Parts: sequence; structure tokens; C-alpha cells
Amino acid sequence: MPEFLKVLNYQTARQLLKDHFPPRGIEYLPLAQCNNRVLAQAMTSPEDIPAFNRSTVDGYAVRAEDTFGSSESLPGMLEYSAEVQMGKEPEFTISNGHCAWIPTGGMLPPGSNAVVMVEYTERLGEDTILVFRPVSPGENVMQKGEDIGWGQLIFPSGKLLKAQEIGLLASLGIDRVPVFEPYHIGILSTGDEIVPLEQVPAIGQVRDVNSYALSAALESCGAVAHGYPLVEDDRLVLQRGVEKALQENDVLIMSGGSSVGVADYSVQVMLSLPEAEMLFHGIAVKPGKPTIGVRVGHKLIIGLPGHPVSALMVFYILCAPLISSAVPRQLDAKIVVNVASQSGRDDFVPVKLIRGEEGWKAQPLLGKSGLMSILAQADGYVHIAYEKQGIKAGDSVQVTIF
Amino acid sequence: MPEFLKVLNYQTARQLLKDHFPPRGIEYLPLAQCNNRVLAQAMTSPEDIPAFNRSTVDGYAVRAEDTFGSSESLPGMLEYSAEVQMGKEPEFTISNGHCAWIPTGGMLPPGSNAVVMVEYTERLGEDTILVFRPVSPGENVMQKGEDIGWGQLIFPSGKLLKAQEIGLLASLGIDRVPVFEPYHIGILSTGDEIVPLEQVPAIGQVRDVNSYALSAALESCGAVAHGYPLVEDDRLVLQRGVEKALQENDVLIMSGGSSVGVADYSVQVMLSLPEAEMLFHGIAVKPGKPTIGVRVGHKLIIGLPGHPVSALMVFYILCAPLISSAVPRQLDAKIVVNVASQSGRDDFVPVKLIRGEEGWKAQPLLGKSGLMSILAQADGYVHIAYEKQGIKAGDSVQVTIF
Repeated sequence: MPEFLKVLNYQTARQLLKDHFPPRGIEYLPLAQCNNRVLAQAMTSPEDIPAFNRSTVDGYAVRAEDTFGSSESLPGMLEYSAEVQMGKEPEFTISNGHCAWIPTGGMLPPGSNAVVMVEYTERLGEDTILVFRPVSPGENVMQKGEDIGWGQLIFPSGKLLKAQEIGLLASLGIDRVPVFEPYHIGILSTGDEIVPLEQVPAIGQVRDVNSYALSAALESCGAVAHGYPLVEDDRLVLQRGVEKALQENDVLIMSGGSSVGVADYSVQVMLSLPEAEMLFHGIAVKPGKPTIGVRVGHKLIIGLPGHPVSALMVFYILCAPLISSAVPRQLDAKIVVNVASQSGRDDFVPVKLIRGEEGWKAQPLLGKSGLMSILAQADGYVHIAYEKQGIKAGDSVQVTIF
Repeated sequence: MPEFLKVLNYQTARQLLKDHFPPRGIEYLPLAQCNNRVLAQAMTSPEDIPAFNRSTVDGYAVRAEDTFGSSESLPGMLEYSAEVQMGKEPEFTISNGHCAWIPTGGMLPPGSNAVVMVEYTERLGEDTILVFRPVSPGENVMQKGEDIGWGQLIFPSGKLLKAQEIGLLASLGIDRVPVFEPYHIGILSTGDEIVPLEQVPAIGQVRDVNSYALSAALESCGAVAHGYPLVEDDRLVLQRGVEKALQENDVLIMSGGSSVGVADYSVQVMLSLPEAEMLFHGIAVKPGKPTIGVRVGHKLIIGLPGHPVSALMVFYILCAPLISSAVPRQLDAKIVVNVASQSGRDDFVPVKLIRGEEGWKAQPLLGKSGLMSILAQADGYVHIAYEKQGIKAGDSVQVTIF
């Protein structure tokens, strides 16, 4: 009879993995290739943005004082003296009672300190502009350095770069960006009953699901996934497969070999590697109890359950937060039915989100752990903490979105 | 003086773009390349999953009737007759009073209809198994076809494929998947004041931000972005640039040429193309009023504002929902300050999310529309509908996450 697994809570297991997660190298990429990459150094601004006082509207650059008291019934009158050209430094000065046409983005000429929107003006002949509203100093103007000042911290290290961040780096002329190399993560599935996708399973066999699902999940976390051929439950073949995959990656994710089946050599193989140390063997979660963490030198092997739904759920709970730099997306919802749970164990329940009249409702998708069709309907999961014996219909829950 | 723009509400503008969004082709990709792609046809199951009754635990396959009445104090006794091998069809039958060892995932032998978990058994010598709990018929067994039945609809057309969906397709042996080709979308920035990233801007010039930010945003929507060199405000050069970019893409996004500056030939160029039709010129939103939609045959040109923040916000509001198949992520929050708004116009206010004790709080990031540093701090935006004159501190708002 197999021995009982010693179990750990999942926070401790995750912290152990985090403490031993391998460091990543830094690469310098052109900005255009940095979407969804993670900054490897804090970035400060090399210049002032904008580099000059610029108009935020189409209108007339003025001395604000000259417009004070202007109104619809008593418009101010200014002398039109010149036109600011886009992309050119104005070579004239605005003196008392004068103004100049300025387009959006144009540089304010010396002497001027505000812009009157064209909608609040009228041109009389060649030289006279009527102003129907006053402007205060600085109105419709973006000041030099107002967006970002020289030396200002733009982003801390670890920031995930999306469109906005990339836009800001572009505006500062930063076209080589220090980003972390992506994690290279191997996936090795084991089990005599598992056959490749293209093979029609004989009675008693199932297709390899984990290699495909975990690859996709890893990609979505920003990692580079390397799938390895299925390994049968043979100690020597497994040993060679694990050694090769571990050599070629930072982390190796195994699945299928972590249950307590009699044909299970996985743990023996993991622990036989040089500098191998068992971090945990079994965690107090449902699904996912037979999860294993082994440190091998400065690399990691994570053994996930063989059941595809359990494997993917444990990946989301334990691995994704360590691999991805995206902030987990969580929202508040009310659970619509009672969900029983066993105290002393953390439960993770896949749920479908339904938009109710008063916020979100979470519908648990209950089913046996092998039902991948259940997980494919889920929008996220609800965590039932180990000290609870379940949650009741109407309880507020936090849903972590997949 | 420039003429006033005729403005449309953004829902109408988006619907017009949607009605004229070009169709996409279908490609058949290997499953391993389908992460984040979109199904182009509904998928039904070609088989039953699982294909046989399988055990969900390690234990003993039994006739449930033989365990009725078993308890800790009065265990049932069964005769051990054989062992189910993983991946093999058992060649024996379980008869009255007998049982067989079965691993998780093993096929139930004929005659058996349930599995007793190993934890609730004890082996006595070679041939006798004590059973300390009864099981009901079907317990710890996943029935043939329980996960997915033959011919059952798995996913509708238009489904975004992520890890779970890919896992389910793998379990069904579907390794060629009909997915939509990604949209090919060109980006063309215009404006005499805009210089390439690598160039140090002279006084009165700014760097090209939109090409980088919009490329990243398009990529995150699943589109293939094609950036084109900056075009100066010269009608002929612009005409050639637009024709080439439109020919090479499904949709062309232009930015910078949609304000009412005097050097603006964009609209003339767009409308001079064969089969060109103005869909809208100006939308009643802030930011983003000077947005343009032009249909050119079966393709589209979308003219975004030149200001990088406005351009990106309009992209998120108007374009992203048409390009991406991901469900927009929205959560409920309470706004922490009053935000004024002008009725008759839809306002979109970037906000930072803060986790409060009672749910999420949304902190508006107010600033002039050119401040890309503001947008880079935002987690999403709040929509203030056109009939409102603002929102008050404490109001519930829905935040759309970037």
C-alpha cells in the first residue's frame, strides 16, 4: 500500500517555489519588441516632456492679462501679428495687445503665456481678433516638463510593459529597453496510459492534454514553453528525459507522475539528480493534493497532478503568480449556491461569472476533477480558505479571472 | 477659420465601423499554435470523453452492493482477484464479493460499478480486502461520455482559445483548428512636428509615440500591426503612403492628421480614394472628438487624434472591441472624488484602482490630454454617459480594465 503524502498549505508551497525560482537574465530589446515584456531595471527620464511650452488647442497665443474682462457682449480686441508653424520655433515675440495663430501642439512664442480657443474668437479683417472669453495664465498650455521631468522615476523594475508604458518610453526616445529574458519552461508528461494527440487512444488510454494546455497557459504568462515527447513509466527513460529537459530550461513542469500509482518513478528520479532537494510533496488543496516541488541546484522541478483540470488549476494557483508579472485580475461577486468544503484544506472552485442587476454573480461549476469541459466554461475561480467549511449562497467572494 | 466638425455619439460611430469591418479569412492551424486565436467555426465533439468508465481515485474496483453496510467497526470483506493496469483493458470480470486494485485513471473492469478509495481499505494477507465505508454505484467513477458526449457542441464560432479550450480540444484529438486569420492593421502617423524615435526632436517637434503605442495595443488585441514610416503633411506623399498601406492591410489607422490644422490633407486624401465614403467625422467624446471613419471599398480607414493619450483612449473605446475577441474586463468600484463632465458628450476618464476595505476604489487620473505619464499609471477607465453632468464621490462606477 502506498504511504500517505505529507501535505503543506499552498501559501507555504508557493513561497518555497518563489524562494527558489531561478533568476533571469537581462536583454536589451528594441522598444517595438517590448509589448508584454517586463522591465529589468528602474527607468528614469532622460529629458523634459514636453521640451517646450505647447498649445493644447487650435487658437491664438496671447498674454493672458490682455484677455481679462473679455466677454460675449464686450469682446477684447487683439492685433494679429504672426502665425506659429507646427514643428518650428517661433522667431517673433508677443507684445502687449498682440496675438498669434497657434495650432494644437505648436510652441508658444516668447511673451505669450496662454491660448484662446478658436471657438471663442472671431477674426475681423486682416489684423484684428475679437476675444469673447478671458483665459488665465497657463490656460490651454502644457508646460515644459509637465508630463515628465528630467530624472523623474518613470517605472520601477518589474513593470509589465503594455501600450501605455511603451508610448511613454517612445515619447522619451528610449528605444533600447532592459527587459528580463522570458522564462524557459519545459513540460514533460508521463504515464503509460497517455498517448500523443494524433494517436487514436486504445481502450484504457487518454490523449496528452497537459502538454497543450500547459504550453498555452505558460505562453499567456509570458514564458517560452518547450514541450517534450511523452515519457512512459520507465525509470531509465524518465531519468534521461528529465535530465535533458532540465538542462534546456529554467524550470521543468512534470505532470502525470505525481500520483501514488505503483508505476511511479518520478519522485525517485527527481531526487536522484545532483543537488536535488525536496521542497514539498503534497499540498492541502483541492484540486491538486499530489503536487511536488523539488529544487535541483538553481533550477526547479514542479510535479503537477496528472488530471488535466487539476494540473491546470494548480498551475494557475501555484505557478502563474511566479511566472507572470501581470497583476492577477480579481473582482467581487456573490456566489449563487452553497459550496461545501472541508476545513484544513484550501479549495479552489471554478466559477462562471453572470452579470446581475446588482453586480457580478459567481456560478460554481461543480464536477469531477477530470472534466476539462467544466473548466473551459469557467471565467475564473473562487478560493475557499482552509479554515472555512464552505460558503453560503449570497456570500461575497473574490473571483480570480483566468 | 476651420469649419465646425459634425459630431456623432460613439456608439453610433462604433456600430458604423462594425458594420463595415472587413471580413477575415480562415486558416487551419496545428492546435499548439492556437493560443489566443479565435475559432472560425463551431466545434462539436467527434467522440465520447472519457471513452470508458474510469476511476478517479486509487483504490479497489467493486460492485457497490457488496460494500453496503460496511463501517469502521464492521468492515466488509472482499476477495482480491486481480489488478487493473494503467492503459490496459482489464481481461477479467468482478463477480459477487470480489474486487480488483485500480489506479487513478484505470478502466473499470466489467462487473464493477464503483471504486473504494484506498484510504478506506486495509489489506489482510494476499487475498482479503477490508472495506470500512460503503460506496454508492458510480462513486469515484467518471462515466463514459460524462465529460463530453459525441456530437455535443463544444464551442461556438468566435470563441477565444486559451489554455482550457486548448486542453479540451486536445482531449478530443482535434489537432487542426479552423481559426480566423488575424487582422492586418497598418499604422500611419502624419504631422510635420513628429520625428522618428531615434531622432532628437528640435524645438517644436515631438517624437512619434502613436506608432509604438498603437502597435502594442493592436498586438494585445490579437492583430498583426504594420507600422509605416512617418509621413509629412504633403498631399502627394500622404496619398501614396495611404494607398500603399491600405493595399497591404485590412484596416488602416492614421493618427495626427485628424485635427483641424491648416496643413491637414488627411480627409481630402481619404475621400479621394476609389469607393471612399465618409462614415463619420467627429464623435461626441472626450478625449477623441476629431476621430474619423472612412470606408474605402471593403476596407476601413480610422483617423485617430494626434495626441497620443487621445489616440490610445479612442483606440480602446472604439477599435479594440471590434478587433479583439476577448470579453472586456470590467469591475465595479466607487469613485473617490467628484468628476465634472459636460452633458451631450461621453467622457472617458482614466482611473487607478485601489483596493479598499469594502471593494475597489477608482481614483481618476486627471490631467491634460497630452499627458502619457498619466495614462501609464491608469488601470482602466470609467465611462460618464452623455446625459450625465458628472459623477459624485462615492458613486458606483464600472471600470473597464485596459
